Amino acid sequence: MEKHIANNLEKLRSLKPLVHHITNYVTVNECANITLQVGALPVMADAPEEVEEMVAISGALVLNIGTLNSGLIQAMIMAGKKANQLGIPVVLDPVGAGATGLRTDSVWAILNQVRVEVLKGNSAEIGFLAGLNAEVRGVEAGKVAGDLIKAARDLADRLQNVVVITGVEDLVISSFRMATIGNGHSFLGRITGTGCMCTSTIGAFAAVVEDKFEAAVSALVCYGVAGELAALGEIKGPFSYRTAFFDSVANLTTENIMKMARVKII
Amino acid sequence: MEKHIANNLEKLRSLKPLVHHITNYVTVNECANITLQVGALPVMADAPEEVEEMVAISGALVLNIGTLNSGLIQAMIMAGKKANQLGIPVVLDPVGAGATGLRTDSVWAILNQVRVEVLKGNSAEIGFLAGLNAEVRGVEAGKVAGDLIKAARDLADRLQNVVVITGVEDLVISSFRMATIGNGHSFLGRITGTGCMCTSTIGAFAAVVEDKFEAAVSALVCYGVAGELAALGEIKGPFSYRTAFFDSVANLTTENIMKMARVKII
Amino acid sequence: MEKHIANNLEKLRSLKPLVHHITNYVTVNECANITLQVGALPVMADAPEEVEEMVAISGALVLNIGTLNSGLIQAMIMAGKKANQLGIPVVLDPVGAGATGLRTDSVWAILNQVRVEVLKGNSAEIGFLAGLNAEVRGVEAGKVAGDLIKAARDLADRLQNVVVITGVEDLVISSFRMATIGNGHSFLGRITGTGCMCTSTIGAFAAVVEDKFEAAVSALVCYGVAGELAALGEIKGPFSYRTAFFDSVANLTTENIMKMARVKII
Repeated sequence: MEKHIANNLEKLRSLKPLVHHITNYVTVNECANITLQVGALPVMADAPEEVEEMVAISGALVLNIGTLNSGLIQAMIMAGKKANQLGIPVVLDPVGAGATGLRTDSVWAILNQVRVEVLKGNSAEIGFLAGLNAEVRGVEAGKVAGDLIKAARDLADRLQNVVVITGVEDLVISSFRMATIGNGHSFLGRITGTGCMCTSTIGAFAAVVEDKFEAAVSALVCYGVAGELAALGEIKGPFSYRTAFFDSVANLTTENIMKMARVKII
Repeated sequence: MEKHIANNLEKLRSLKPLVHHITNYVTVNECANITLQVGALPVMADAPEEVEEMVAISGALVLNIGTLNSGLIQAMIMAGKKANQLGIPVVLDPVGAGATGLRTDSVWAILNQVRVEVLKGNSAEIGFLAGLNAEVRGVEAGKVAGDLIKAARDLADRLQNVVVITGVEDLVISSFRMATIGNGHSFLGRITGTGCMCTSTIGAFAAVVEDKFEAAVSALVCYGVAGELAALGEIKGPFSYRTAFFDSVANLTTENIMKMARVKII
Repeated sequence: MEKHIANNLEKLRSLKPLVHHITNYVTVNECANITLQVGALPVMADAPEEVEEMVAISGALVLNIGTLNSGLIQAMIMAGKKANQLGIPVVLDPVGAGATGLRTDSVWAILNQVRVEVLKGNSAEIGFLAGLNAEVRGVEAGKVAGDLIKAARDLADRLQNVVVITGVEDLVISSFRMATIGNGHSFLGRITGTGCMCTSTIGAFAAVVEDKFEAAVSALVCYGVAGELAALGEIKGPFSYRTAFFDSVANLTTENIMKMARVKII
């Protein structure tokens, strides 16, 4: 698997796909930068008049509801439908699903109208969408009651897609496969935008890797390995770590991945 | 007082309150990051359909009119009224009040409909709102004519709240109390968003400290002390200072506050 | 010319003009910060109710269509017309023109109703607007067929303004003058927002330099020299370079410009 992941990163860097984002205004700059550092080209566009045209020239579509409103959700659905028609993969981050009715309803409105190849959230967001009792504190994960893996697999079954749950250990789940990724660093939880950036990274890999399960695993390993490498430098706190993290993503090598990947296919 | 401030910081870090922001799209990322570094959890949400629900699960509401529009002001008023009903403190940063009619009118529309526990601006913004002749250059403070402290006290009297004026020396003013805070660093004036981030920090403390005068003083001291600590590292200019500042806020200790706080209650 | 450029930077720093931006939400924070670091004061405001009032107190207006929508374009046109009435210079960055119909149409809507003193884009954006076959990948420049310089000069002729084309070598073109600027660094292409920040820098100089050709040349030289200086420090990747770049802009000296400027007037 490590070899595949390293190859996928090389492929991403040589193809430089355009990754169309319809995302929130809080972490949009980090999403653009991480997309660029990992090797793809970001484009952010959300006007209903242009989203179909923009997604048509893109390699993947990333939808993130961090600061949603009704107009934005309509633009997401328009762009998502067009992406589906053209065979362009769609990745959805249901930020804060469960925290408010608007967020929950919007996620289902998207999922009901757009085929989403990868649905990626934290344990509370995915737990909530999968029907478990989950505490969502704003956009942070709280406690989840019940069998999260089973519920996520049922959700992946129903959506016929890949479900990603991020946390200390990341899980990638489809109907018949599961992977755990042990890479990452605690500092990633101490700066804003790391969840959103992870989704953008999955979008970048989804643009060039046919198998979306493998795309998600590749993205999470690269992201987590870069997170570990960033901590090796001279770090004085979460924000100097942030700078080091972006640099690590840009500097990531095949050797880093081969040596450091901690992925298990179950 | 220093002991209280240090205790308040510890309390903030252990309670990790959710701080709901309705803010501008220029400095929103810094506001989210500073909220996180000081020990709270940020959530940004401005859709009218969800602001009441979001504020209801939050510990404080921060309103910032940096890039206002009529829809955003309506969302602020909706969220503010709900916060008032539930006893959740509201902090308002009237960015650029006085620079345009829209800004001035919007601030009064909020103040007339929402009880704002802490109103925080620079000398020109507060001076203008307090009825003095004040020059507001876009979102920067210009000259203010008249007795700013007296005018601010009258304003605090009328609003029955706490008024904060930031500057080289920060002032915290209520009907019957006043504090001056001498902490801070000139580099804070050379990067964008430091005014907005200061407001977010006040919001974080207001969520856990009952007395809002003490909450504001605590926030300003922590912010200013971190600003001084940041300058002790290897700084090559305003932007490397910016990184160090976020790290300093995250790393702030009780000892730093006890030793470095420069606060006078008058 | 170097002496003029250095003087213009000193003038900018002493006059600290307000630069009103109506721009995108992806790179808006960088635009504000670069404006501040180069010596001006940024203000971002896009509500139709206030743009005319805000531009009236500003020294220049920067329009950037990075994340445009129909409301934003209307605000740009309102602000632009007011700026024209008052003799305040307008700088336009047609981000992604040619990538979608909305972007192309919006640029022409602006150019038809507002006199734009400086139009600044990459080779594909300007090539496309000048009538050449140009590939625009989202917001990135692709290949351009034909004589770009001649086409840009014809465009400048028609618009009676200054056209700037950024790239490895930057071009500043008017009806009867042309300059090439060789300063810059490849890392500027590896972080987001450097195109937008360059436009903001042109806006800052346009506010204080009467001759807009000279204003654009001055901005590009300062920007490029700072880009080279940033690379001299301890850089570990694109993001630590980003921090160094902002610091370099803030620390730029007359000596740096006199020694390092690589500008040719043709």
